[in-house]
Amino acid sequence: MLLYILDLVGVAVFAISGVLAARDRELDVLGVIVVAAMTAIGGGTLRDLLLDRHPIFWLTDTTYLVVIIVAALATIVYVRYRPAPLFSLRVADAFGLALFALLGASYAEAAQAPALIVILMGTMTGVTGGVLRDIVTARVPLIMQREIYASAAIAGVAAYLLMQALGLPQPVAFVGGVIVVVALRLGALRWNLHLPTFR
Amino acid sequence: MLLYILDLVGVAVFAISGVLAARDRELDVLGVIVVAAMTAIGGGTLRDLLLDRHPIFWLTDTTYLVVIIVAALATIVYVRYRPAPLFSLRVADAFGLALFALLGASYAEAAQAPALIVILMGTMTGVTGGVLRDIVTARVPLIMQREIYASAAIAGVAAYLLMQALGLPQPVAFVGGVIVVVALRLGALRWNLHLPTFR
Amino acid sequence: MLLYILDLVGVAVFAISGVLAARDRELDVLGVIVVAAMTAIGGGTLRDLLLDRHPIFWLTDTTYLVVIIVAALATIVYVRYRPAPLFSLRVADAFGLALFALLGASYAEAAQAPALIVILMGTMTGVTGGVLRDIVTARVPLIMQREIYASAAIAGVAAYLLMQALGLPQPVAFVGGVIVVVALRLGALRWNLHLPTFR
Repeated sequence: MLLYILDLVGVAVFAISGVLAARDRELDVLGVIVVAAMTAIGGGTLRDLLLDRHPIFWLTDTTYLVVIIVAALATIVYVRYRPAPLFSLRVADAFGLALFALLGASYAEAAQAPALIVILMGTMTGVTGGVLRDIVTARVPLIMQREIYASAAIAGVAAYLLMQALGLPQPVAFVGGVIVVVALRLGALRWNLHLPTFR
Repeated sequence: MLLYILDLVGVAVFAISGVLAARDRELDVLGVIVVAAMTAIGGGTLRDLLLDRHPIFWLTDTTYLVVIIVAALATIVYVRYRPAPLFSLRVADAFGLALFALLGASYAEAAQAPALIVILMGTMTGVTGGVLRDIVTARVPLIMQREIYASAAIAGVAAYLLMQALGLPQPVAFVGGVIVVVALRLGALRWNLHLPTFR
Repeated sequence: MLLYILDLVGVAVFAISGVLAARDRELDVLGVIVVAAMTAIGGGTLRDLLLDRHPIFWLTDTTYLVVIIVAALATIVYVRYRPAPLFSLRVADAFGLALFALLGASYAEAAQAPALIVILMGTMTGVTGGVLRDIVTARVPLIMQREIYASAAIAGVAAYLLMQALGLPQPVAFVGGVIVVVALRLGALRWNLHLPTFR
């Protein structure tokens, strides 16, 4: 139940980020919704395919698609009347990254994957939606940005596993992991932080 | 049987579109065939993975690959001796989009997916081959074009569902849906039509 | 056992190629490892999904990820102190292409796919990791290069099937196929060879 609601929230914020990325791309409204849907379901779909979880999460439950359409239309209308807040694309992306990273990790854990694999699966689930969005809208992928990105997902999932190893209940560790990802990502953007880069 | 033939026709037209997109890309003949194959089987492969249909449609039946190779070689030879008709890439793409959108929708329907999901699955199946082709040949994805694209697939699948709800037999509704997609897409290109764009 | 070791070697060389492709992309160390991991597991993951082999090869066995991390870190350190050898990215890519093409072919053969499909599956498995790497690091995909690329994979798998048809034991044919791919690819780069291109 909790995972279901978090899945829906993750889908909504990634749908918003898809709409914001599709601005100035001359797409019509239905095209924008298709980009929003690809962004919103991309990560979870990869997760379900890799873990062989069928039916895929959005296949038999229309709620996901309804949430995507409502979130996309609301964003389209909002952006028409007020300028989108500065950094809004990156903020929505940070929350989507965080939620899907932790969701991917939870499902990999439930499939008894070893800890290192849980981190990999969480990171892949978290970054996939945004990578698809950036490829389809012909943007430089956020994952290629200088500021901490994939690293935030790795740190958040590691924190989640650590908190559970220290005896915290899973939902608390989940929220803790989400906070780590979002704080690292937005902090990195705000103060222009980055790990040593590789040249 | 009918679905099988339509699958083959969709594979052939997308293979042709892959060859046309690979022109001027300095690929050798085998490389062109690989691009044609990726374009031709991309959408149906995603459909089968998402619906957990195994074996994947082209895995045990060589006919698909033979059709791809024949269509690709014929196009290569044709283009060598006569200029490709104007818009030929977009016409082949429009038919591939239409056939795979309706095929994806049919299979999703057979898996009892709800109507909204049938539309999403049809649209994704229809656009995937072309998106792969455009990424691999480094073109601006047709899905990002200003003229009606994903919207044509959505409208065609919706028309297909509506015609069935009105009591028309499935094969008739299928053909009707294909006509809607192709007419919308080619009409949009011909008269430069587009839905209101989102800025 | 042999396939397992070859899988590990393929994963290691593609991880190295991922690190080399991520140079000058301003990624931090963890970001580089994510690119290395995507490159290294991309082809095999597609292979396992298409053949419905679960669990996916890296999902329950941490060895793969450990090999990726060690290979990536070693490459990062090496490149810091000495210039990477000329063409090093393309050499690592050629070995990854060869190993995964033959591995994909072997698994497709084990799933009783017909010969033409074995060639297609091998080629797709071979090229996918590199295509993902090049898309994510915003490079012109090697598959689009003028020098023999996908054709090398096709020739290597065809040689592998032919050697078996001539009665050679499978491991010998495997090594023969790898040699064909690497020799064709590196020979094409060295002497600027290419098949007739399609214009």
